[in-house]
Amino acid sequence: MPSMRAAVFQGPGKITLQEKPIPSVGPGDALIRITTTTICGTDVHILKGEYPVQPGLTIGHEPVGVIEKLGSNVTGYQEGQRVIAGAICPSFYSYACQDGCASQDGQAHGHGYKPMGGWRFGNTIDGTQAEYVLVPDAQANLAPIPDGLTDEQVLMCPDIMSTGFAGAEQANIKIGDIVAVFAQGPIGLCATAGARLRGASKIIVVDGIDERLAIARHMGADEVVNFRKTDVVDEILRLTGGRGVDAAIEALGTQATFEAALRVLKPGGTLSSLGVYSTDLRIPLGPFAAGLGNHKIITSLCPGGKERMRRLMNVIETHRVDLAPLVTHHYKLADIESAYDLFANQRDGVLKVAITP
Amino acid sequence: MPSMRAAVFQGPGKITLQEKPIPSVGPGDALIRITTTTICGTDVHILKGEYPVQPGLTIGHEPVGVIEKLGSNVTGYQEGQRVIAGAICPSFYSYACQDGCASQDGQAHGHGYKPMGGWRFGNTIDGTQAEYVLVPDAQANLAPIPDGLTDEQVLMCPDIMSTGFAGAEQANIKIGDIVAVFAQGPIGLCATAGARLRGASKIIVVDGIDERLAIARHMGADEVVNFRKTDVVDEILRLTGGRGVDAAIEALGTQATFEAALRVLKPGGTLSSLGVYSTDLRIPLGPFAAGLGNHKIITSLCPGGKERMRRLMNVIETHRVDLAPLVTHHYKLADIESAYDLFANQRDGVLKVAITP
Amino acid sequence: MPSMRAAVFQGPGKITLQEKPIPSVGPGDALIRITTTTICGTDVHILKGEYPVQPGLTIGHEPVGVIEKLGSNVTGYQEGQRVIAGAICPSFYSYACQDGCASQDGQAHGHGYKPMGGWRFGNTIDGTQAEYVLVPDAQANLAPIPDGLTDEQVLMCPDIMSTGFAGAEQANIKIGDIVAVFAQGPIGLCATAGARLRGASKIIVVDGIDERLAIARHMGADEVVNFRKTDVVDEILRLTGGRGVDAAIEALGTQATFEAALRVLKPGGTLSSLGVYSTDLRIPLGPFAAGLGNHKIITSLCPGGKERMRRLMNVIETHRVDLAPLVTHHYKLADIESAYDLFANQRDGVLKVAITP
Amino acid sequence: MPSMRAAVFQGPGKITLQEKPIPSVGPGDALIRITTTTICGTDVHILKGEYPVQPGLTIGHEPVGVIEKLGSNVTGYQEGQRVIAGAICPSFYSYACQDGCASQDGQAHGHGYKPMGGWRFGNTIDGTQAEYVLVPDAQANLAPIPDGLTDEQVLMCPDIMSTGFAGAEQANIKIGDIVAVFAQGPIGLCATAGARLRGASKIIVVDGIDERLAIARHMGADEVVNFRKTDVVDEILRLTGGRGVDAAIEALGTQATFEAALRVLKPGGTLSSLGVYSTDLRIPLGPFAAGLGNHKIITSLCPGGKERMRRLMNVIETHRVDLAPLVTHHYKLADIESAYDLFANQRDGVLKVAITP
Repeated sequence: MPSMRAAVFQGPGKITLQEKPIPSVGPGDALIRITTTTICGTDVHILKGEYPVQPGLTIGHEPVGVIEKLGSNVTGYQEGQRVIAGAICPSFYSYACQDGCASQDGQAHGHGYKPMGGWRFGNTIDGTQAEYVLVPDAQANLAPIPDGLTDEQVLMCPDIMSTGFAGAEQANIKIGDIVAVFAQGPIGLCATAGARLRGASKIIVVDGIDERLAIARHMGADEVVNFRKTDVVDEILRLTGGRGVDAAIEALGTQATFEAALRVLKPGGTLSSLGVYSTDLRIPLGPFAAGLGNHKIITSLCPGGKERMRRLMNVIETHRVDLAPLVTHHYKLADIESAYDLFANQRDGVLKVAITP
Repeated sequence: MPSMRAAVFQGPGKITLQEKPIPSVGPGDALIRITTTTICGTDVHILKGEYPVQPGLTIGHEPVGVIEKLGSNVTGYQEGQRVIAGAICPSFYSYACQDGCASQDGQAHGHGYKPMGGWRFGNTIDGTQAEYVLVPDAQANLAPIPDGLTDEQVLMCPDIMSTGFAGAEQANIKIGDIVAVFAQGPIGLCATAGARLRGASKIIVVDGIDERLAIARHMGADEVVNFRKTDVVDEILRLTGGRGVDAAIEALGTQATFEAALRVLKPGGTLSSLGVYSTDLRIPLGPFAAGLGNHKIITSLCPGGKERMRRLMNVIETHRVDLAPLVTHHYKLADIESAYDLFANQRDGVLKVAITP
Repeated sequence: MPSMRAAVFQGPGKITLQEKPIPSVGPGDALIRITTTTICGTDVHILKGEYPVQPGLTIGHEPVGVIEKLGSNVTGYQEGQRVIAGAICPSFYSYACQDGCASQDGQAHGHGYKPMGGWRFGNTIDGTQAEYVLVPDAQANLAPIPDGLTDEQVLMCPDIMSTGFAGAEQANIKIGDIVAVFAQGPIGLCATAGARLRGASKIIVVDGIDERLAIARHMGADEVVNFRKTDVVDEILRLTGGRGVDAAIEALGTQATFEAALRVLKPGGTLSSLGVYSTDLRIPLGPFAAGLGNHKIITSLCPGGKERMRRLMNVIETHRVDLAPLVTHHYKLADIESAYDLFANQRDGVLKVAITP
Repeated sequence: MPSMRAAVFQGPGKITLQEKPIPSVGPGDALIRITTTTICGTDVHILKGEYPVQPGLTIGHEPVGVIEKLGSNVTGYQEGQRVIAGAICPSFYSYACQDGCASQDGQAHGHGYKPMGGWRFGNTIDGTQAEYVLVPDAQANLAPIPDGLTDEQVLMCPDIMSTGFAGAEQANIKIGDIVAVFAQGPIGLCATAGARLRGASKIIVVDGIDERLAIARHMGADEVVNFRKTDVVDEILRLTGGRGVDAAIEALGTQATFEAALRVLKPGGTLSSLGVYSTDLRIPLGPFAAGLGNHKIITSLCPGGKERMRRLMNVIETHRVDLAPLVTHHYKLADIESAYDLFANQRDGVLKVAITP
């Protein structure tokens, strides 16, 4: 049985490269030879033991690659074709999927909604930080890469761009809105680009790192606020003439950012939350207007599927956004442990790391 | 200057009947002679000092009456005509109103959104527990009562029905949804009726008083759960086959009901919150799926305006719902202090009290 | 090879019963033994040669039956289980399906949207007027019948109820709306029931047959208009005080009903169209306000899939609507040619015909 | 009584400059001294007698100016302040306005919806092609111009930009959509800019004038099609790989553009119509999929009100779009008859004409 190298979760604090068999391909699957992948903040949660997965699992959920082998039921693709698949790869046939909740894909046959059930790579099945990955429900999830786009140009589509854009989409932005985005890591930067793409007329972004704020301007921010230097709530209220923002996008996953987002939100506004929280959240009574403020709090998990991927790649193909600045570092798969070390410790101004075989 | 009797907030713990001048009518106003009004849970918050209003203010925000005098700019109405006005009576011309947030009506000329700014009766101007009330922006707020409807039939429209229905409307109910409603006081009962009216196919309601649960069945509930006898979360999960509900409506304003609503909500579902909270709220991490559950939390303040009132009265006129069972007690205005005593202490199975001159 | 009887389109004017092989079951399919099916108006279009299908095709798209055999990839069902499937049975994995247009399901692998591509039974593959039918993409389309519901109770779910309800859903009905429904055949009657279920406060229905108007009242109509006796537009404008209706549902497919629907529609209103038209349509300039009336014209094709079927069956299970009065006649499959004769000629007050083996 | 000059409709074919009294100011009004206005295609319809208005009416509905005098009830503004008002200036308090149909503003007190009832300037009351204009319901309609913006920068806001953007907004554009815009006059160009602003990833525009197509590229078009040189439907289907467009915006008001828009629309797509039609429209059966294509046809009338104007001016202030290229010619009010001659005959590449006192 041929084997491949894969970055495997061994237990809290330990992801190491090891040999694994190349998976065999079932009728609905596709085997993808990975040409580029990356590390996500969620992977760091896994590494640290904050998000539980089974020891022995291959990590990673952002695949760019080439079809190595197609299952017998998968049609309309060719072996050798360049493709991506979403980090979240739902079946699309479950009750939850048909009900509009594909990311919360229930079991195929049950009535249920499984929280985050659509997230399988590097969560419930082997992931993408390997030489090969098996894509389940391939007919629903393989998205051909348009000619002329490089691996790095589409590397953000499976997760970072899809999630960040979802933050803007769910914020229900209308033309002329003022939008604040809290945190300008890769997802926050994509939320900024997404808010711009939806017609916000003023975008205010918050982070503590000036380099990220500079990139945020490139992504479409009109105003930047460094929370290490300024009182964020005061400054945003000042920038909006006391009115507050129409929508606030939370892109970190902490009480502080969630709460600040609520404090700058106008009555009737939407708090669109993307972050992965690690503690209970507190909603302060006053900014919540005791429950009478017509506020909306909406959470999103990265949308997946081949149609979503097709749309995102089109956005890149027609130069609506350029996410190249997000790839700050490059590593070989053989050196992925070093890449984790850099990324988990956020050294050297890292945003995203491209991993190639 | 002619005078009238009015129920006036004197300070925490004290609402008393006193003489006040009948208000004079500005060009955009209408003076309404009250024929029926009622006491709301919010009035009890005011009475207890939990919600601050100015001492000297007339309380009450649910007017049914007759036009006594119209301002010079108000057209299309006749003095002597029977009308209601919403508890929330926005200007409809402010920036906030034009932006779709009428209940959070900002100042007429500012850019702002004032939390609950549309609520004026018994909050920022004299209210309806009096012989007369002055309706501001009358052209936008006077709603003629259809012939054949009694005062009591429309008494719930200004607040209770508008709020309860908003809970169902904002829950984004689709045909075939399972909906849970937490608390079956007057607003919760109207939320139940509203959920039925929007096409929910199974409605599960929760309260601790069997009499209210019995009325809830009359309003459209399919299943009733008494939280004093049953573990609410377990029971609702059982009733939904472990799937959870598509929408949960919170109609009380406590941590317990808010949290239970979240715990029974399917990933991707909507928590529609109506309650007036008096403490910070806690969102538990697990049921919130760490922020990755595609949950929506939506709060609503009672919609007002003559168009909303017209629609609600039509619903009653064509017998879609019958809210008569909600009026359990009758008092004269002269005895309103006794009515407060009954209502604030929730004695004698009281739901709503009709107050007449 | 075992054989079965099936109603087969032989050419315009001719549908006859003949022997056909029982289909063999592929990995994603399910073979259903039909216990009840029915004839649809669309089948009559096919019979008359107005809608082209291949000679030799088995007709019918409304299956109620029992799982005879499951494909190797289909899980979570048992052979012997009672199920239905939607008239429209999309793959749910195509680009079109993932884009929210399941009824217009494109090819599995192409980018395309195929008009009515989700309609396969009795259109592009063998249909349900037979002893057995093969359900493709069974995992997405088999919907178990809740215990206690009879075949006839769920016989309208696959098409008539799903289509009629879609007419009400797409009409964007709000609580307190006035809705007119044009034509009260089976689909129009379901649109009436659907409008009621969505919260319309006044429902005005139009037909030329008094018996249908009587059933319409049972389905929720408040006012009935017989177009043979009354000028429909004048009467509806009178019934609405000159205001027009908030939404008009067209359920026949003629210029006359489409145009009347537009003529009674308020500026800003929605014309929800369900009919299958057989000629170009004309939009009259005046009622269309020269294109400046903020009108919406929305067409719908029957939604399918197991989640839709689940929801519709729940609506019946909890007694929200009773569609039993729509089944007016019963035939054996052996006598289906007589059933077509009755149904195509609309004799004897027929609404729907139940066909059993 | 002081007088002013105004461009007055005298009868079909004749708009002339004449002296009129400066209007007196009622309590809810504001008198605006016009500093810049313009001529709209609708004015040309009026000139030609195709759209009926009363002889003697001052024409024009696009005001930029300075507050000369405020009515006694209008607060929050200062005389001397620079403002605009929407071409459509609804009351915002009528039933229609409260129901979300402000452009179809009914009478203040009736239940009705008056088609285009919100359009008053140069239609039912004296318009803006004059030295002064009286703005009714001023509290709802006066929108202060942000510091630093010139008259010409905001001249498109009252109508052209608001209408064109509405075309994009009502097209329900999602990120990654392909959108076609038919006709690239001023409104079509703004629809193109609006589609870009909402996140369309490919925008295909159609016109017969190469200069307009060149400006369209500046506004955000990715592909341009000259209908004089190319078969529009074939070309757009080619550009979309046979798939059709997600949304088609009609910005002219002819059968040809309406029909082409439908022919290139994917099943499930939206046809957003902005044009003022002058004949009945024909919907061809095939492209309409006989009414089974899940198509949406949505018409829009220019949204107005101070909140809409505020948002549009913010879009300009933050440089999201630059509409300066649309002002191709400048005239003094004294020469407005020449301006009409140029504009009505579309000479000299005219797009929009700035008229100053």
